Amino acid sequence: MHRVGALALRGAAGTARTLTSSCSRLALAVSAKTVPSFPCVDAHAQRQSRLESSDLSPSSSGPEPAYARPNPTSYKIYQHPGVFPVLYSQTPLPGFQIAYETWGTLNTARDNAILLHTGLSASSHAASTPANPAPGWWEKFIGPGKALDTNQFFIVCTNVLGGCYGSTGPSSLNPLTPGEAYATRFPVLSIWDIARAQFRLLDALGISKLYATVGSSMGGMTSLATGWLHPDRVGKIVSISGTARSSPSAIAMRFAQRSVLMADPNWNKGFYYDGTPPHTGMKLARQIATITYRSGPEWEQRFGRKVRSSPTEGGTAFGEGHSRTPLLCPDFLIETYLDHQGEQFCLKYDANSLIYISKAMDLFDMTLPTLNDLKLQSSVPTPRKTANSGRLPLHTSRPPQYMADLAAGVAPLASIPSLILGVQSDILFPVEQQRELADALRLAGNEDVTYYELGGVWGHDTFLIDTANVGGAIRGFLS
Amino acid sequence: MHRVGALALRGAAGTARTLTSSCSRLALAVSAKTVPSFPCVDAHAQRQSRLESSDLSPSSSGPEPAYARPNPTSYKIYQHPGVFPVLYSQTPLPGFQIAYETWGTLNTARDNAILLHTGLSASSHAASTPANPAPGWWEKFIGPGKALDTNQFFIVCTNVLGGCYGSTGPSSLNPLTPGEAYATRFPVLSIWDIARAQFRLLDALGISKLYATVGSSMGGMTSLATGWLHPDRVGKIVSISGTARSSPSAIAMRFAQRSVLMADPNWNKGFYYDGTPPHTGMKLARQIATITYRSGPEWEQRFGRKVRSSPTEGGTAFGEGHSRTPLLCPDFLIETYLDHQGEQFCLKYDANSLIYISKAMDLFDMTLPTLNDLKLQSSVPTPRKTANSGRLPLHTSRPPQYMADLAAGVAPLASIPSLILGVQSDILFPVEQQRELADALRLAGNEDVTYYELGGVWGHDTFLIDTANVGGAIRGFLS
Repeated sequence: MHRVGALALRGAAGTARTLTSSCSRLALAVSAKTVPSFPCVDAHAQRQSRLESSDLSPSSSGPEPAYARPNPTSYKIYQHPGVFPVLYSQTPLPGFQIAYETWGTLNTARDNAILLHTGLSASSHAASTPANPAPGWWEKFIGPGKALDTNQFFIVCTNVLGGCYGSTGPSSLNPLTPGEAYATRFPVLSIWDIARAQFRLLDALGISKLYATVGSSMGGMTSLATGWLHPDRVGKIVSISGTARSSPSAIAMRFAQRSVLMADPNWNKGFYYDGTPPHTGMKLARQIATITYRSGPEWEQRFGRKVRSSPTEGGTAFGEGHSRTPLLCPDFLIETYLDHQGEQFCLKYDANSLIYISKAMDLFDMTLPTLNDLKLQSSVPTPRKTANSGRLPLHTSRPPQYMADLAAGVAPLASIPSLILGVQSDILFPVEQQRELADALRLAGNEDVTYYELGGVWGHDTFLIDTANVGGAIRGFLS
Repeated sequence: MHRVGALALRGAAGTARTLTSSCSRLALAVSAKTVPSFPCVDAHAQRQSRLESSDLSPSSSGPEPAYARPNPTSYKIYQHPGVFPVLYSQTPLPGFQIAYETWGTLNTARDNAILLHTGLSASSHAASTPANPAPGWWEKFIGPGKALDTNQFFIVCTNVLGGCYGSTGPSSLNPLTPGEAYATRFPVLSIWDIARAQFRLLDALGISKLYATVGSSMGGMTSLATGWLHPDRVGKIVSISGTARSSPSAIAMRFAQRSVLMADPNWNKGFYYDGTPPHTGMKLARQIATITYRSGPEWEQRFGRKVRSSPTEGGTAFGEGHSRTPLLCPDFLIETYLDHQGEQFCLKYDANSLIYISKAMDLFDMTLPTLNDLKLQSSVPTPRKTANSGRLPLHTSRPPQYMADLAAGVAPLASIPSLILGVQSDILFPVEQQRELADALRLAGNEDVTYYELGGVWGHDTFLIDTANVGGAIRGFLS
């Protein structure tokens, strides 16, 4: 360590003390005359000019954003044969397609299908397939003998309507403006539309009744919506780290992401497909999202207060022999981690898809007044029994004001065996939301609600990591 | 309510249902051909051109950012007579000044002074004064018979070094580059520098020993640093919703704010004082900050899922008779609240001050290895006794790994009666941090640690709101 600068500090009481600051020749030399350097800002600017010089523009032969390079051989396509009405728009979509992948075999009775729902930004590629051997986002949960057992079940996973991995979304060509993408001419979406589009695929596959609908995070919402729309077509429901009613705190965190994205001048009100994509806004949005995906205790264990020990990385704490002064750019490993997560994501996913789908999550609310006002109707009349038999315990000793409305809203699910799973360290979909969902189902008269709560420090991401506990719960419930 | 669009949805099982979407002529008319409007984006652009047309530029006669309009008659100034070394820089500051205000009267023994420390962005104006009758940020806590009782005490509050309300900071003129502000030529700051600068003011005021040092949030850190630097000059310590060691989750949330700010092209690596300030980045940063200041339960009570019922505001929920379709711009009251908070703040505070002071918070760490490496020394030798007497209970049944280092680090505070107060709904400085601080002090041998924990839903902002409980605890402890 190279030390410079012994600073004489004189206390008023007359005690003289010496304070040596640790600096190094590698350090950002900030003096009152030097113009400082900002490697983190320069890195952004470099990507911007690389993008503008068309390395990543659709017309060049260079690498493109991942979503602009669909590989239609790696998934199947369901093409809807007509217009498709959506909940929040006067004008129906002129048409749509859904990208999907499957694992296992549909049996002759066609009654072993499981519809798996993704989180916000995932593709249909939940696990490797012969057509696409890359590991999927739920690789460890799908396969022979796994949580979703392909020896027994036929698993279907789609890219959601509004997405950018093969399904129709804002980045798709708009038939009404030839040669142009929808961009923000795409209608505001709802989870209900996403679920309804998937039923059209199931129709085409000849699946009249699902063995189960399974999903985590946003997929946990879609899983509930699927059961609600057609209780007669769903055998079991699994909803992990989801909710039946998006909370204002989750809306706040998604609003912050949309705000930084829409403030990126490259976003251009959504019309960026012929230019440079809003990569900076996407990076910033993903940094914020990443904060909500894990937990403080995990970061404490994983990073603590460690900092990069030099521009070429490392991992000691300031005050544990580090060899440079702090910067205004990222210093702590938690900062470089968030920076890296944002960097990895910013060209992988379509900015408009993020805006539309996150908004669909915000709008999701299964309380009865909302469902009534939207004129949403379940395909099966609501069962008469709308009160907890009293045999099952409730989790919320002080139920929220809207509990009665929520129980009335989820009444169409009263006859469907359901697994609700929550994680205590989740700050995005706090465990209170899964408790209230389980309670609402029980109050609605559902006597077959399994409820699990997991500890651990992985927060919202637990559903991607904890094969033993999440996978085990699903496997047990489905068998 | 004006309803349009009866959409026929046909279930695969053959059930036909009708879904009516609620729209209105006021609505954003998104159709597949219309170019959508984005009032929230337009509002930004309008402010930008207003700022560029020099309404707010320093050279015009129009309104300026609040921090560019100091009113030196409303506070007093301490002018430091020489250079001032700072912890993380080889080069000392050429000089500095500190803006401060006082309440009550310094007694003849000069032993009734309380130094009050601000949070990140507050000015010295903690309460109204004859020179500035506007209410201060802690108005309800300062005055005759209040928590800081001006009948008994002489209260001093400063704008921190690095701030923009009269004290020297990045927006101040740099004597080495005449006519120019420091901008990011300002050295990286630490909480220790902020505390040391305040001791120079106390020297000038002839206050050799404080009755108490009191602070919340960042002020809770500075309060500890003040006691640590000169235990012989501090009678009592109050640290509310603070910490002795910034956690990676708090660093993450401040990093997200700095990132959106530094990504604003107007920030220009900190050199924006002659141009348009990074108002958009500041607004986005404040939105993120606001999320961390309150709590999910508060928003549930206050906003729930209510939305603006029309462009002219309101407050019903989607599905409770609202008369328009959702937008991609703010709909929910939680969104308009965050938008408004950001809007209010974006020209009130200097962007570089936010970056420097939030970084100082991140860097704060009283564990012994860090203090040793920084060569920080307390003016009083560490007492020998460094173990809990066993008579006081500890709060953390499973103390963090760094607890021994923290207890060793805070040992200079072992003889100072201390009040530590935490709030259970705080997500920025979680209550675990105040528990560990209280435990560390007790483990260090401090037998006069008062520890309170508050419930309620106000989160980190509780210290600004809860006069009864926060104020009561302080008043009791100080008397």
